Amino acid sequence: MDGFALLSQHACFGGWQQFWQHASRETGTSMRFGLYRPPGPVRGLLVYLAGLTCTEETFAIKAGAQRRAAELGLAVLSPDTSPRGTDIAGQAEAWDFGVGAGFYLDATQAPWATNWRMESYLMRELLPAVQAELQGVPGVPGLPVGLMGHSMGGHGALTLALRHPGRFASVSALAPICAPARCPWGRKAFAGYLGPDESTWAAHDASALMASQAQAPYPRGIRIDQGLADQFLAEQLHPEAFEVACAAVGQPLTLVRHADADHGYYFIASVIDAHLAHHAQALG
Amino acid sequence: MDGFALLSQHACFGGWQQFWQHASRETGTSMRFGLYRPPGPVRGLLVYLAGLTCTEETFAIKAGAQRRAAELGLAVLSPDTSPRGTDIAGQAEAWDFGVGAGFYLDATQAPWATNWRMESYLMRELLPAVQAELQGVPGVPGLPVGLMGHSMGGHGALTLALRHPGRFASVSALAPICAPARCPWGRKAFAGYLGPDESTWAAHDASALMASQAQAPYPRGIRIDQGLADQFLAEQLHPEAFEVACAAVGQPLTLVRHADADHGYYFIASVIDAHLAHHAQALG
Repeated sequence: MDGFALLSQHACFGGWQQFWQHASRETGTSMRFGLYRPPGPVRGLLVYLAGLTCTEETFAIKAGAQRRAAELGLAVLSPDTSPRGTDIAGQAEAWDFGVGAGFYLDATQAPWATNWRMESYLMRELLPAVQAELQGVPGVPGLPVGLMGHSMGGHGALTLALRHPGRFASVSALAPICAPARCPWGRKAFAGYLGPDESTWAAHDASALMASQAQAPYPRGIRIDQGLADQFLAEQLHPEAFEVACAAVGQPLTLVRHADADHGYYFIASVIDAHLAHHAQALG
Repeated sequence: MDGFALLSQHACFGGWQQFWQHASRETGTSMRFGLYRPPGPVRGLLVYLAGLTCTEETFAIKAGAQRRAAELGLAVLSPDTSPRGTDIAGQAEAWDFGVGAGFYLDATQAPWATNWRMESYLMRELLPAVQAELQGVPGVPGLPVGLMGHSMGGHGALTLALRHPGRFASVSALAPICAPARCPWGRKAFAGYLGPDESTWAAHDASALMASQAQAPYPRGIRIDQGLADQFLAEQLHPEAFEVACAAVGQPLTLVRHADADHGYYFIASVIDAHLAHHAQALG
């Protein structure tokens, strides 16, 4: 990839777990990402958006997705969770806002609007570059892409999949923030990045976006897994709001609730193969 | 377990990834360990000894072993790599000696001999306690135990398996330090923990121990996986020395060399299922 530097790569299940760095046009910062490249032909690209405080390494290290990705011929792209290295005052003072907490949207408010452009970064810059790299044939229709994410990244997966119809072949989420406009994490982020006018928030709220659809946007179905021992479930996640919105527009939703599971990567590892299978059906 | 405090547990592949803490009689310190408990009956206990700088969490987070362990009914014990929290001067100044670098032996030299008693800690204290906990029936013959490890922990697995005949049903290693008496990591550790008299070192050197056997100690075979792109292979690991020693005493050894693999956990994750299968044969 032109202008992209390969920081490291590690043999993994017959393929390569790579880490890259590049100067981003959209964020104005140096950005890193992980890319798992399976052995043999690449059938599809799966994008994983991580949660608060995570980096481009978290999913690659903790989720154990490479085993099945190798078998299924799926590449897996794991972007970072925000710009880093700007000189914005207070950018790293909170764990749930600023660095590590980009919420996968383009901020409209100073001082964030210049760099915190994660939606444009992903959709206009990183994803096209990685798709082109993987398919190797510029100009032909792109490699099919699936989108998934965890917690804040689940919010990112659901909202980007709804804001960019036709761009993703499949979508799923793990313990996603489903109604950010009404939970503390989301309200803090939206107030800071989008400003106090709450009418602008609905366009970045998965449940509100789904409720506004004229018809089911993903007729093959959306998969969500949620632990019932998740310490953030009651206050922050609201899967029932997304469930209601899906039902109202006829969007098929498989919402699997797990009695003992918490919010962490031991849960993610336990269900990741099911998510890869969900995406492989659409990407195959 | 009496006197053991459960620090946390996480639902994982139908079982539980637990982390425990206890006051160790042998090390005189507070020690932590990880324990994966599979769903259903426990058929065997697999002990994983980690490498330099690792903690009781590293394997649980990075190796992805729980999926197959759950299917095979294996519990997995992951001890810490040294005592921590003593007031020995310089204990944490080097990454390859002292804290995080216990080398799974009992030090004989001051100031280490009081606390750096990892062999006694594992063999006399932790392992019996965990075995008793898992089988739940005090007094009956113990649950079968397999032993594996990586790098410094591979040294630990091979040497403890040879120093305690009959204690382990199976043994394997990943990129182990096979001849510590002749590599920089091992010579530094042995000089510090065992003193300058090199005649005492052979009892903790896997290749020397194997060469001294009257007959094959593990007739069902030992498995080792080694990456050929491992940055420590040439200087530190010497698998060929262990291979020669095994051949000399008729010890069956499956030494699998992987062209592209490095020393890290992406390699471990790629081969961990094969190691679990190796142990399950003996523990089943």
